[in-house]
Amino acid sequence: METGAADMTDTNERAARDEVLALARAAKGAQVQLAAAPAETRTRALRAMAAAIMEEAGRILDANAQDCAAAFALPTHLLDRLRLDRARLEAATGGLAQLAGLEDSVGKVGAEWTTHRGLLIRQRRVPLGLIAAIFEARPNVAVDLAGLAVRTGNALLLRPGVEARRSVLALVEAMRRGLAGAGLDPRALAAVESPYRAAANELLHLRGLVDLLIPRGGPGLIAEVTRTASVPVIETGIGVCHIYVDRAADLQMAVDITDNAKTSRPAVCNAAEALLVHRDVAGRFLPEVAARLQAKGVELRADPESLPLMPGARPAVEDDWGREFLDLVIAVRVVPSLDAALEHIARYGSGHSEAIVTADAEAAHAFLAAVDAACVYWNASTRFTDGYEFGYGAEAGISTQKLHVRGPMGPGSLLSSKFEILGCGQVRE
Amino acid sequence: METGAADMTDTNERAARDEVLALARAAKGAQVQLAAAPAETRTRALRAMAAAIMEEAGRILDANAQDCAAAFALPTHLLDRLRLDRARLEAATGGLAQLAGLEDSVGKVGAEWTTHRGLLIRQRRVPLGLIAAIFEARPNVAVDLAGLAVRTGNALLLRPGVEARRSVLALVEAMRRGLAGAGLDPRALAAVESPYRAAANELLHLRGLVDLLIPRGGPGLIAEVTRTASVPVIETGIGVCHIYVDRAADLQMAVDITDNAKTSRPAVCNAAEALLVHRDVAGRFLPEVAARLQAKGVELRADPESLPLMPGARPAVEDDWGREFLDLVIAVRVVPSLDAALEHIARYGSGHSEAIVTADAEAAHAFLAAVDAACVYWNASTRFTDGYEFGYGAEAGISTQKLHVRGPMGPGSLLSSKFEILGCGQVRE
Repeated sequence: METGAADMTDTNERAARDEVLALARAAKGAQVQLAAAPAETRTRALRAMAAAIMEEAGRILDANAQDCAAAFALPTHLLDRLRLDRARLEAATGGLAQLAGLEDSVGKVGAEWTTHRGLLIRQRRVPLGLIAAIFEARPNVAVDLAGLAVRTGNALLLRPGVEARRSVLALVEAMRRGLAGAGLDPRALAAVESPYRAAANELLHLRGLVDLLIPRGGPGLIAEVTRTASVPVIETGIGVCHIYVDRAADLQMAVDITDNAKTSRPAVCNAAEALLVHRDVAGRFLPEVAARLQAKGVELRADPESLPLMPGARPAVEDDWGREFLDLVIAVRVVPSLDAALEHIARYGSGHSEAIVTADAEAAHAFLAAVDAACVYWNASTRFTDGYEFGYGAEAGISTQKLHVRGPMGPGSLLSSKFEILGCGQVRE
Repeated sequence: METGAADMTDTNERAARDEVLALARAAKGAQVQLAAAPAETRTRALRAMAAAIMEEAGRILDANAQDCAAAFALPTHLLDRLRLDRARLEAATGGLAQLAGLEDSVGKVGAEWTTHRGLLIRQRRVPLGLIAAIFEARPNVAVDLAGLAVRTGNALLLRPGVEARRSVLALVEAMRRGLAGAGLDPRALAAVESPYRAAANELLHLRGLVDLLIPRGGPGLIAEVTRTASVPVIETGIGVCHIYVDRAADLQMAVDITDNAKTSRPAVCNAAEALLVHRDVAGRFLPEVAARLQAKGVELRADPESLPLMPGARPAVEDDWGREFLDLVIAVRVVPSLDAALEHIARYGSGHSEAIVTADAEAAHAFLAAVDAACVYWNASTRFTDGYEFGYGAEAGISTQKLHVRGPMGPGSLLSSKFEILGCGQVRE
């Protein structure tokens, strides 16, 4: 019997790998047509995908209900991300409509010049090719990514978390019908059916087929993909974000920003994980912010100096600094100066989003210049690090790396370029 | 005794790792000042680096003579790359002067807009931080990279091949004097002294310190670095480049381009490795190009159809297609159509540089659109894929990947960006 079970596992894993390979090859083939089509065709496809999702809303919501029923053991915040309803479908298809209205840059010439040898060089924007995404339980990620892929002439292969499998397959089926309706090969968009881990592993190593792999999910998933993939990866979404309340802060604004950055959606990467407060205002600010946060159920982990100012707080341990709680928890520290805040952020930040609250323009500019992160805020919540908020229409993730794209990934991040060099027989001496 | 030798190895390896770590930390620290300095200071530093190299030319050439004497066993073409003379030093410092004349983009705002929530978003260009380079026997690579790093506000840590060690250390010492002369911290520029492999291995894994690692050298080095590094890497310089001679080619031009692309510098990545010829012109073209190439000592490896047209050629084997000979060898194939040429290139090309020779604009545009490579040429030699030829002043390598930068890497490729977001208390709903 044991051999039988092992055989079955082998068979399932082989089938998973075969499925991924077949889908990837078909998608890569279909991508050529998608990229060569006129921009209007991709625009039409985006509208048709949105229409198909709303037409098939009943079937999609049924599939989602099955996913939710099967995932009853998930923590509440994950279950909330998994759940679809008509409003969420409308929001997702609204994103597709927004992308349909955006300029299409596929094949556009970005720069053009003539060299001293008389060669005409044109840098043309081209799709990356096949984009793969490994994500967890949020089905609407599939719609965002599909919209971005079609707008940019890229094929897309999705590997959803098992919890969202039925929902994503139903969404992809509808969107493929939209693609076909616009006269495009629907195989440019696909989702892996196999729930086996071997499917994800296969995706990580399809060098030459997968041009970009985007991991979307928790820190564990992202770290594993970044460490093990041999295809190109963009690291997304590890957010250890700080709010620094300067001595010259408008303290009411600072309370509002801290509250929003911590509590409006604690499980996302642009939520704040730590609060740094200048010593000069700690006595007035901390009791007030503590009351506001505690009223919303936030646990405060305080350094020795802030602890007595926040009744009900507990002492922070070293491990609390630089930690992505992704929960209603925040670490709090009093700092003697702006420089001390900058040092703390340099040491513990993840290069995602950092904010200063201050009325002092000099302090603000010093903060903006010194902090090495994708997004640096002056008097605003870190929660705005988001493709929609940036006006990109959708978002493929938030890059925390410095190469290729940094911050919210809009359509431009899914394009590469190619040089066309036109001569009349030039050779090099 | 064996234990003693092993201890010694351990000690040397530990010393190598310690050296790399200390240099990287110091360089990373010095980078902050380099990036924050006004553009004029970096310009002055570039000119001072050039001046210092010429002032210390005697010492540098002495060091190089020692390197060359020790490397007598190297193949001639590598020894040629290793050798410095006054003319080569002048060419290298000329590159620094050219970079001094280029616009400095550090800290410039690339895009700026206001969101629907009234946030002002500014995308500012910022240095990557610390760039590391592992290279082989070409000392002038050190000058090119140092110039690019200073122009872009990045620190640079070089790990030259052991053959070029003395030359590179002498060049770096001179350039550091130039940096210091401009009032900058000279530690922003460094070369590893240790000849131990552990030094290179350490560089590959300095996550959080090394922001970009550029491997420059043969395919073996590049493949190993790409496979094993845990710091961000840009894949450079694997060039399996094809010349496709179309049925409508000017055959004299095609002979000149093939000759130049193959023989002007056979050991570099933009040299041609294969020649594809349309059947309709094979009978006229191949004997002529064969005579020209053979007169220059090129070995021809021919498919069955081209073989009888080129006396002295030998039959190609499957392994000859897609091979980077880096030598006076070229594979030759007759193709029945443009499409067959495109299929061959898609299958065997490395995405570096590909050329079509034709007077038929329709065929040329089909080729330019269909070939998926960093550089696609119409009626010019693939040898122009080069930072100097593109007008970049210097080149950090030629990227064959699609993310971040594709093709010759000029100053722009060593910059990232950072979003500054200015609000007046905005929070997200």
